[in-house]
Amino acid sequence: MSFFADIAPLKYEGPESTSDLAFRHYDPDKVVMGKRLEDHLRFAVAYWHSFAWEGGDPFGGPTFMRPWQQAADMDHARAKADAAFELFDILGQPFFCWHDADVRPEGATFAESLKNFEEIIDYFLGKMESRKVKLLWGTANMFSHRRFMSGASTNPDPDVFAWSAATVKACMDATMKMGGQNYVLWGGREGYETLLNTDMGREMDNMARFLSMVVDYKHKIGFEGTILIEPKPQEPSKHQYDYDVATCYGFLKRYGLENEVKLNIEQGHAILAGHSFEHELALAGALGMLGSIDMNRNDYQSGWDTDQFPNNTPEVALAYYYVLKAGGFSTGGTNFDAKLRRQSLDPQDLVAAHAGGMDICARGLMAAAAMIEDCGLQAALDARYAGWDTPESKAMLDSDLGSIFDKVVAGGIDPQPKSGKQEILENYVNRFV
Amino acid sequence: MSFFADIAPLKYEGPESTSDLAFRHYDPDKVVMGKRLEDHLRFAVAYWHSFAWEGGDPFGGPTFMRPWQQAADMDHARAKADAAFELFDILGQPFFCWHDADVRPEGATFAESLKNFEEIIDYFLGKMESRKVKLLWGTANMFSHRRFMSGASTNPDPDVFAWSAATVKACMDATMKMGGQNYVLWGGREGYETLLNTDMGREMDNMARFLSMVVDYKHKIGFEGTILIEPKPQEPSKHQYDYDVATCYGFLKRYGLENEVKLNIEQGHAILAGHSFEHELALAGALGMLGSIDMNRNDYQSGWDTDQFPNNTPEVALAYYYVLKAGGFSTGGTNFDAKLRRQSLDPQDLVAAHAGGMDICARGLMAAAAMIEDCGLQAALDARYAGWDTPESKAMLDSDLGSIFDKVVAGGIDPQPKSGKQEILENYVNRFV
Amino acid sequence: MSFFADIAPLKYEGPESTSDLAFRHYDPDKVVMGKRLEDHLRFAVAYWHSFAWEGGDPFGGPTFMRPWQQAADMDHARAKADAAFELFDILGQPFFCWHDADVRPEGATFAESLKNFEEIIDYFLGKMESRKVKLLWGTANMFSHRRFMSGASTNPDPDVFAWSAATVKACMDATMKMGGQNYVLWGGREGYETLLNTDMGREMDNMARFLSMVVDYKHKIGFEGTILIEPKPQEPSKHQYDYDVATCYGFLKRYGLENEVKLNIEQGHAILAGHSFEHELALAGALGMLGSIDMNRNDYQSGWDTDQFPNNTPEVALAYYYVLKAGGFSTGGTNFDAKLRRQSLDPQDLVAAHAGGMDICARGLMAAAAMIEDCGLQAALDARYAGWDTPESKAMLDSDLGSIFDKVVAGGIDPQPKSGKQEILENYVNRFV
Amino acid sequence: MSFFADIAPLKYEGPESTSDLAFRHYDPDKVVMGKRLEDHLRFAVAYWHSFAWEGGDPFGGPTFMRPWQQAADMDHARAKADAAFELFDILGQPFFCWHDADVRPEGATFAESLKNFEEIIDYFLGKMESRKVKLLWGTANMFSHRRFMSGASTNPDPDVFAWSAATVKACMDATMKMGGQNYVLWGGREGYETLLNTDMGREMDNMARFLSMVVDYKHKIGFEGTILIEPKPQEPSKHQYDYDVATCYGFLKRYGLENEVKLNIEQGHAILAGHSFEHELALAGALGMLGSIDMNRNDYQSGWDTDQFPNNTPEVALAYYYVLKAGGFSTGGTNFDAKLRRQSLDPQDLVAAHAGGMDICARGLMAAAAMIEDCGLQAALDARYAGWDTPESKAMLDSDLGSIFDKVVAGGIDPQPKSGKQEILENYVNRFV
Repeated sequence: MSFFADIAPLKYEGPESTSDLAFRHYDPDKVVMGKRLEDHLRFAVAYWHSFAWEGGDPFGGPTFMRPWQQAADMDHARAKADAAFELFDILGQPFFCWHDADVRPEGATFAESLKNFEEIIDYFLGKMESRKVKLLWGTANMFSHRRFMSGASTNPDPDVFAWSAATVKACMDATMKMGGQNYVLWGGREGYETLLNTDMGREMDNMARFLSMVVDYKHKIGFEGTILIEPKPQEPSKHQYDYDVATCYGFLKRYGLENEVKLNIEQGHAILAGHSFEHELALAGALGMLGSIDMNRNDYQSGWDTDQFPNNTPEVALAYYYVLKAGGFSTGGTNFDAKLRRQSLDPQDLVAAHAGGMDICARGLMAAAAMIEDCGLQAALDARYAGWDTPESKAMLDSDLGSIFDKVVAGGIDPQPKSGKQEILENYVNRFV
Repeated sequence: MSFFADIAPLKYEGPESTSDLAFRHYDPDKVVMGKRLEDHLRFAVAYWHSFAWEGGDPFGGPTFMRPWQQAADMDHARAKADAAFELFDILGQPFFCWHDADVRPEGATFAESLKNFEEIIDYFLGKMESRKVKLLWGTANMFSHRRFMSGASTNPDPDVFAWSAATVKACMDATMKMGGQNYVLWGGREGYETLLNTDMGREMDNMARFLSMVVDYKHKIGFEGTILIEPKPQEPSKHQYDYDVATCYGFLKRYGLENEVKLNIEQGHAILAGHSFEHELALAGALGMLGSIDMNRNDYQSGWDTDQFPNNTPEVALAYYYVLKAGGFSTGGTNFDAKLRRQSLDPQDLVAAHAGGMDICARGLMAAAAMIEDCGLQAALDARYAGWDTPESKAMLDSDLGSIFDKVVAGGIDPQPKSGKQEILENYVNRFV
Repeated sequence: MSFFADIAPLKYEGPESTSDLAFRHYDPDKVVMGKRLEDHLRFAVAYWHSFAWEGGDPFGGPTFMRPWQQAADMDHARAKADAAFELFDILGQPFFCWHDADVRPEGATFAESLKNFEEIIDYFLGKMESRKVKLLWGTANMFSHRRFMSGASTNPDPDVFAWSAATVKACMDATMKMGGQNYVLWGGREGYETLLNTDMGREMDNMARFLSMVVDYKHKIGFEGTILIEPKPQEPSKHQYDYDVATCYGFLKRYGLENEVKLNIEQGHAILAGHSFEHELALAGALGMLGSIDMNRNDYQSGWDTDQFPNNTPEVALAYYYVLKAGGFSTGGTNFDAKLRRQSLDPQDLVAAHAGGMDICARGLMAAAAMIEDCGLQAALDARYAGWDTPESKAMLDSDLGSIFDKVVAGGIDPQPKSGKQEILENYVNRFV
Repeated sequence: MSFFADIAPLKYEGPESTSDLAFRHYDPDKVVMGKRLEDHLRFAVAYWHSFAWEGGDPFGGPTFMRPWQQAADMDHARAKADAAFELFDILGQPFFCWHDADVRPEGATFAESLKNFEEIIDYFLGKMESRKVKLLWGTANMFSHRRFMSGASTNPDPDVFAWSAATVKACMDATMKMGGQNYVLWGGREGYETLLNTDMGREMDNMARFLSMVVDYKHKIGFEGTILIEPKPQEPSKHQYDYDVATCYGFLKRYGLENEVKLNIEQGHAILAGHSFEHELALAGALGMLGSIDMNRNDYQSGWDTDQFPNNTPEVALAYYYVLKAGGFSTGGTNFDAKLRRQSLDPQDLVAAHAGGMDICARGLMAAAAMIEDCGLQAALDARYAGWDTPESKAMLDSDLGSIFDKVVAGGIDPQPKSGKQEILENYVNRFV
């Protein structure tokens, strides 16, 4: 008996299709800039939101009542996996992602949880044998259980650091075993609720030491994927140490990890930090830190992390523009870190939400590719900064305040503003979206 | 004929005073933690808000109509300086601060502006001879004139970079001549209005090169003050490169300037960036980057930089707690980067606003000092992290994921949550404020 | 065996006390403006946050693990009540508040839930016999169970409206039986997640019809308390119909309910709506709608409803200033709709949090009373608007545009701005807090 | 000599056009839902942003340096009008809008300002004779001059009320003389900076009295247009009385003006108030208060009123969906209350910005019309609320709590959640945008 009983694998039907269960824009084999859309976008389904979250919110309990949520034992964990792979078969996306806590029941001891985890990983491997779906990344949930309430690597209790280290080791092993392409760390409680009880200096040192151990272990076991950390400014914590791209960069640079670790950047987290998604992506590109993306959407009128499926093509197009400008994904991809609304109870909602998100991303990426190929934005940029390409400008950069001062005082320099052409460039973008 | 005609120098009258024009808490000679309050707080009046701003806002023109705002010539610049020094005499604060554009009329050429500037600096020096008031810092306004509309050091036009370099050189010279204790750079337009026309990588490189020139020039002329940059996330720009403390740290570290430059941190900017003031100060303390503060207050219900005088003792107390924890000010101080409300037209409003702000800061600092001396917060911190001071914990930090994993799998570790005692610590703080 | 085993009833020990478990400012018998502090403040403990919430958040499960949270049966419900009344004995506050869902286990049917509820109400009544603690208000939780996921009275399914009506009837009966002083309705899911599936006009009509039934039932049973609705802009919903005080007023006025229903105003909700608490209170006062308050605090750097215990005296003082200006509480009071931080696990934390909040409120109210008695703010107001008290001004208000125009065109009127004295008034307030 | 010398009237060139100065989507004669696009959209150019604003912001002076901004005399006012009508000729839009202060220089007295104003109105009328462009609305700027710093109708000084009344009378006369279709009041300073100096009750009463006079004068002179007020929550004031649609409704209802006054709703103001534009429009539709719209866009990452030209089709489509659902515009229209970015200096920028905005609106309206005609959203709504159309549901609404309670207690009612289908509906919308 299947969870999505009556839903056949989705097909690309073109923009005019009126089906709720088809792709209108995502044609995996369509070639754009010399690459198939599937290979550009590298979609992943997130096990957490789609199969572990039960539909609760701070003011209400579960609404979904999925069969596998009725108990936390191995049978239900396998039933959950069965449903997940059904969805993968329907969507045909190339990747998925998990937290350890999504896939296995918590045991009474670390060893028991580990045993559960390893069994499920094997169960996954069995299912993956006959399918093309792969693991984009694995990660450890070190924020839901009460033992992590004051942080994982930054916990005041060294035993929690130990527990966390052991957990990550197990998750990295599983990720490697499954051929995962990245390993992600998200520090949901690596931060504070109040400064009054927090030693930020010490906590950041411990967090950095932990990350160094992760990097060392990667090299020790020969894991060839990328280690990623994920910026988020707050929620659940009042303040998290991995605030945004710039903060993560400074942190990695401070501890000499900037060449070992890249970033998994999420739209919703960008917005919570006061940035646009494209800002975070462009900055990561400029700093050489772009690894992978968590695609979703936050409600601009809500102040918390709403994690909705993306639905605004112009926004998504700008995001992919900066991804493509940075060279596109290598090990990274587009993970739907997005959840159904709490009232979207039907299995069909889960399929349609992913289909809609994949379509929006496809539209966005195709628009971005068209802008890259048209070169309009790049040409405008080149023209605007052309003055800096002259030998005089380069000489000035090599000189000093005193000599520049002399030249300016001597007269003849009176810089006149030139239009920034913002609206014209915005109109340009609107030709493609 | 004086501007503040009837206002005598303010005196400390004690908490029971009902005068609008007296200090109720700021007794400069009161000794706290072995230092006079004046030497702890190191108050500065900001020339900009108090004497150059005319009371306009985005929806309305000037309201203040100060006599010196009727024309932009040297006579009016001197009249403005006369009024400013009158205020300094009334308040008795030890420092003031200026931008070049606050103090001198713009000339038709760079050379003419420079001449005006140098004359006013000499006029200041004449007034300072007979007074104790000193310069906390000088800075260049490279954001108001239309030539800076697309940035100063990050402008697409190299001539603006040149103009800016010459300007800063002149301001550093003046700062040194006046015995200024710091030199500040605020990048109000070093950022972007739209990513579409912006090459962030190039602009950050240019900004860093500019800052390096400033550092080199400091050493060349033997300026012994501190070079400070000032974090602000946005406004006037949509996004500014000096977003917050963490971002500035990453920027300085990237370009090898972290030992040469410190930060001037403002409450209002912290709030715009989504932080509390105490967060920014504690983080700067942890990173060794705390230089000086711009004291003000932003309205929590307004989304722009309201720059009001501080009036909430509990907030100010926490700010000074982290200043004191970081060792207090050396070259830095408390600059009132605060402006009157647009409807506060009377000279008396300007005096009372400063007096109120100085009182709040004095209350805050005295509360902070009492908390430091009582050691309650530090003791709670020491207890909370005590587990990390054991040899076992240190050994664990020196080990690796694999060996920690072995220990955890072996059993015996089952970390139990301990109360974070947030409310008890908040109650503790309320004993002092 | 008691939950708070070792904690004796708290005593007023005065501001110098260093005990974590004493009142430093709340002396219930202290007389201010002719009334005891206890009678001014009318504190209530909220059953929900203090005894039903388990410490979860959107990213983590329960942390508190109270004994009564281990099962949802009547024994545990009674154990919970025992703990609650222990806390009431320790705090000595005059009131408490409940939702039906806080106090009784959900049954398999409406009738079974009702039976459970009625048994617990009787259990409460037994405990109240020997104590002075009373019910400030009762309310129905019509947002947590999945049946309410799309609203209660605004649900697209009429059966949910029916279920809700029956629920409120039962809660009103229980409130009356317990001598409750008010009955509150909070429309946590009366709003929408997306406009796309929402008929706002129909939903508001149904909500109003529901409220009319509540008012009718109040009169039918002779309940003499006040019916209160509680403004909140969003969370859990994206948008809630009871957005803020102004919106609630318009809603009540539209349906002719403005003389039957008053408002229960919460600081955290005010902040989420973009207002200050004092704004909402002053507006409710001006509209004659102020009923009761939910006292708490939201973190200004977090965009969700953090419901923390209040800890900032200056803010609380302004809130009570507008409460006192509106005549103080009649049936209403100060309900601590505040919850411990998730890491505050110890029974002692719950006591200390309430004690700290009660102290802050006492300080705030005493400061507010002193300002009322000093008349400084009122005198400033009277002076500022004095021009409107002249016969000429009253005549102008009774005239029309044309005749005013004639007078102005004739000349002689040239209004000159007068200082708003904001900073001086802020300094004035700081004399009292 | 013309300002836009080389720019010919824009033509509709279709979506494939690559011209910066053409319409790609706005074909005024295209018929949608039985009406020409021009007659649906009813575009207006705002004199204020496009011709009076000089490019300043809170941190910088003017950048635009238009020829007519060099002096405030009648010659320059006429030059400004010449440029404005040039733009109207280029864009071909059917309407424009003005504030009195945009079009005439301020005189030394009210009478002199009035004379200037009347001369310019006649100058406009001369220009309009040979053109099809009409006045969508006139309004009085009662917020920029310092006399209005503490409000217009809510000013503590009755003389400012008088000045404002005379001003509005003059503007209404001019609007009527020009055949204007609406008269707008925006209370930019009708609110407060601090509650401490504000008597909200009195100020709201005065504001209502003022508005009643306006309504009376409309009837007296036989003006057949619509009186509109414009919601905005804050900026320039900390709080404005016309906060949002719901607040304005309550205000009008309170003073019996809800049938005389409608609303002019702006996207940017909706966002500042914490709403989406479509929320405000849908609510106004439900309340019967929708008059006209100010079309623009606020930057979601900036906390102030950025007033940018719209550029996001999906957002604009939802806005027009609710406009069409409410019956479309009668006297109202789409006013571009949008300004160039400060760096967009060229005349061409002003043209392109409007062309881009008009295209986005045309795309949005055509998508909205297609959704209306497809009936998909309405059908989903009808299905979702179908339960309310039964006789049983209607009977329940006519009954009371007691009888509903009896029925529920009797059993048989156990409402089960049904999917809200949010993602499916969002996907539906994306078929059209």
